[in-house]
Amino acid sequence: MSRPAVHPVEPPPLIDGRNDEAPPRRVRMKDVQGMPGTPAGLALRLCQFIFTVISLTVMATTSDFPSVTAFRYLVAAVGLQSLWSLSLAMIDAYALCVKRSLRNPALITIYAIGDGIISTLTFAAACACAGITVLISNDLNRCDINHCKRFMSATAMAFISWFAVSPSFFFNFWSLASR
Amino acid sequence: MSRPAVHPVEPPPLIDGRNDEAPPRRVRMKDVQGMPGTPAGLALRLCQFIFTVISLTVMATTSDFPSVTAFRYLVAAVGLQSLWSLSLAMIDAYALCVKRSLRNPALITIYAIGDGIISTLTFAAACACAGITVLISNDLNRCDINHCKRFMSATAMAFISWFAVSPSFFFNFWSLASR
Repeated sequence: MSRPAVHPVEPPPLIDGRNDEAPPRRVRMKDVQGMPGTPAGLALRLCQFIFTVISLTVMATTSDFPSVTAFRYLVAAVGLQSLWSLSLAMIDAYALCVKRSLRNPALITIYAIGDGIISTLTFAAACACAGITVLISNDLNRCDINHCKRFMSATAMAFISWFAVSPSFFFNFWSLASR
Repeated sequence: MSRPAVHPVEPPPLIDGRNDEAPPRRVRMKDVQGMPGTPAGLALRLCQFIFTVISLTVMATTSDFPSVTAFRYLVAAVGLQSLWSLSLAMIDAYALCVKRSLRNPALITIYAIGDGIISTLTFAAACACAGITVLISNDLNRCDINHCKRFMSATAMAFISWFAVSPSFFFNFWSLASR
């Protein structure tokens, strides 16, 4: 920590009794709502889980989704994200119940990397499906023989779940960089 | 600027004449290669520019690209990214020539936000085109009547340019969070 004060005499002992050898490692992360272990963080995770499950259900119950690679990929990506979000929601809920802090650099690193990878996969799947849905509905006008509405709903839900993952990723990445 | 020296007597006036009231704002950012104003940063920008221009050229010279929304969107996205990367490459080159530092918080914020938006647009366009290209080539086997190779090349170049933007974004975001 940079200390603007200048001590020509013996400096007084620090209030919280910490030693001064490695101050940046001792700094506790700030308790920002939306980070792991906070109620807002848990709400974000539950939001992600709900939207990915809706997207997965809508896409997986469409009869002809296995014929298109991008739709199969969407099912895989949102399936993976639902598992990830559910696991972290359970960890958050547990941490809130026992009132333990999850703001530990190693954990935040894992969360930031995991969120980064999972959100990129979901976004890529949603974009690929959006491209194909627009191709079918606007460019080819083949909605009569395809389940355009179901494809659109699944794609929209995947985008919403990506929007819900992004704040988690940014909070974790930011707190990782600013610790 | 942080000064390790301790002055028990009257401190000498600062060289650059700044006042000492807000020390954390005066801390100079570290000179990490890849950040704006460094040779590696300039190389990254030039890389981005070259790959987006190749992608743009390949896609725009394909006769039937305007019939597919995702391909038109790719042209728009990589066009925008080529302009952005070229502008920042020119600023970097100028800063290197006159040996001026670009590590200023306001500038880094603009760079981080711009890189974040532009890279997301390019990635979305590349994913949408990849979804359609895979649909045409693998799922429908219609490569005989479509320019599959050109679409694939343009998509691949867009992905490579996204890979080249990501480090710039991460460097800027990281240095913004850790200042």
